[in-house]
Amino acid sequence: MQLDLTADAVTLTRQLVDIESVSLDEREIADAVEQALRGQGHLEVTRIGHNVVARTDLGRPERVVIAGHLDTVPVNDNLPSRLEAGVLHGLGTCDMKGGDAVILRIAATVPEPNRDVTFILYEAEEIAAEHNGLGKLASSHPDLLAADFAILMEPSNAIVEAGCQGTLRVEVRTTGERAHSARAWRGVNAIHRAGEVLRRLEAYEPRRPVIDGLEYREGLNAVFVRGGVAGNVLPDECVVEVNYRFAPDRSEAEAEAFVRKFFAGYDVSVTDSAPGALPGLDRPAAKAFLEAVGGEANPKFGWTDVARFATLGIPAVNFGPGDPMLAHKQEEHVPVEHIERCEAQLVRWLTA
Amino acid sequence: MQLDLTADAVTLTRQLVDIESVSLDEREIADAVEQALRGQGHLEVTRIGHNVVARTDLGRPERVVIAGHLDTVPVNDNLPSRLEAGVLHGLGTCDMKGGDAVILRIAATVPEPNRDVTFILYEAEEIAAEHNGLGKLASSHPDLLAADFAILMEPSNAIVEAGCQGTLRVEVRTTGERAHSARAWRGVNAIHRAGEVLRRLEAYEPRRPVIDGLEYREGLNAVFVRGGVAGNVLPDECVVEVNYRFAPDRSEAEAEAFVRKFFAGYDVSVTDSAPGALPGLDRPAAKAFLEAVGGEANPKFGWTDVARFATLGIPAVNFGPGDPMLAHKQEEHVPVEHIERCEAQLVRWLTA
Repeated sequence: MQLDLTADAVTLTRQLVDIESVSLDEREIADAVEQALRGQGHLEVTRIGHNVVARTDLGRPERVVIAGHLDTVPVNDNLPSRLEAGVLHGLGTCDMKGGDAVILRIAATVPEPNRDVTFILYEAEEIAAEHNGLGKLASSHPDLLAADFAILMEPSNAIVEAGCQGTLRVEVRTTGERAHSARAWRGVNAIHRAGEVLRRLEAYEPRRPVIDGLEYREGLNAVFVRGGVAGNVLPDECVVEVNYRFAPDRSEAEAEAFVRKFFAGYDVSVTDSAPGALPGLDRPAAKAFLEAVGGEANPKFGWTDVARFATLGIPAVNFGPGDPMLAHKQEEHVPVEHIERCEAQLVRWLTA
Repeated sequence: MQLDLTADAVTLTRQLVDIESVSLDEREIADAVEQALRGQGHLEVTRIGHNVVARTDLGRPERVVIAGHLDTVPVNDNLPSRLEAGVLHGLGTCDMKGGDAVILRIAATVPEPNRDVTFILYEAEEIAAEHNGLGKLASSHPDLLAADFAILMEPSNAIVEAGCQGTLRVEVRTTGERAHSARAWRGVNAIHRAGEVLRRLEAYEPRRPVIDGLEYREGLNAVFVRGGVAGNVLPDECVVEVNYRFAPDRSEAEAEAFVRKFFAGYDVSVTDSAPGALPGLDRPAAKAFLEAVGGEANPKFGWTDVARFATLGIPAVNFGPGDPMLAHKQEEHVPVEHIERCEAQLVRWLTA
């Protein structure tokens, strides 16, 4: 399959969608992307695994990253693509081959951008973090990712979503003593002790800090609860699994300290943690980008790969065609207008 | 295998223990019991399934039942029996072949009891209620079970445990609305809503009614809690499974009404219910029995098959050799002295 970078972005999106590329099966699409980019004389192309990095090297004072993942969630009777009344339907149209097409179009049609650009198309974003291509590059080739600002073309309704909130998962454990439920006074019920844990969660008031003019909204939620031994036994353990989504003005350590204090008196163990990312809208490249897209930006509540840039010290935003609520749904689709608008705004920013 | 009813009760216990009789595999032991009882000319013997009923028919004004189950929980490297320093070890020694041996000894050695006696040795007590031999007899041949008083020879440390508490199991369900945990304000967390359910349970004060001079102790306990969809989703359902153990002055309907009122405002559904049994220590046969064993009686907190007699209008007590806390344990055992004492006391009661 050859990609035609002279075609319009919607046609290119369809070409990308019709190359099946479920996570861990990205060879074909990465080959096509690599070949297409190597055909652009102004770009320096590097292939690492099924990740393709293409860079301009014009000696500009600023460098920006524009990145997108090539993989999709599993096929669900939603291929090939189908264009209908200005909307492109099919697996990956929204998450995120519309964004990938915009990246390839910019790479091909803006040979002399006003900022140096690093285009990154990577593998395995939809599965466990250990496989994530961007994460691997960040570890093995941080120099390749170096930049002043990054745009991740995850679906955001073609509106800038800046930064992202961090996520921390903890297990809050209560213990007791087993006893036959007919002789309850001989034991201590660990599930009853979890009542206070849930009561605190119910009374929790989320913090809503404003950062770079964007209001984030934290969240502290039980996502699982489990306990019980048998239908006639007082349980000696109960575990409440809690997910804390924290605004990017808090570090992972601060988030953990908050949760430990919140559950003071209980056994708290961290099972999972990922930092947030500051919006960084005060950086010159970001300011110019915001202007180019009309000045509108929202905070990003969910965790995305922008946080991987943040850990490299690179502020990053999500900005891509498609509604994020449609990602991973069988009926995912993207308005053609989103793709065209994203492309036009990025071109304006890089050529102004 | 032939049982020797002229042997002492301890020897007879060993004989019974050494006939493997895990639930649903009681043919051999029931055959042996049936054959031994048919050898007693003063008894009218009926075999139904692997249940053996043997009755005196002396026209006494009172009739009492003495009953025990023949099955055991699965073998756990604890057969054959082993007698050591006055303690008999092995599967079923405690639960409840010591009691069965006492029944067979009384049947053989007290041909003219002062009360008519119905001896019942039955199958499948250790598994799901649908298989229970006593339950089946109560349904199919209630006439065979008719009596003024019943003794179930379940292990009770050779001390009378009167009546039994009922048991009711309910699911208390909270519901909410799913949402991504990064956008918690769009949903309602069902696990948080269960906090109040657990809080009420923690504050619960058990009722301790005195019935026939015995103080019962109720219990209301969460035995399971479950909820959760995914690590990043607000759960839309949480279920707390609660076990109510209620004193025998409450009917099942009253127990259910209490629990529904206790969890007012929540969705409560009953999953399991079994009535308690009043001690009935005011009946003449029971009074005489209590005197014969020295007047000591404790309330029975756990549920046992005595409740099956209660549903037939027959007051019943637990009274048998062995520590009930050892039942179902690999190391179960019974003091020889318990077996001998139970036998002597029953003989005294039936011959006084």
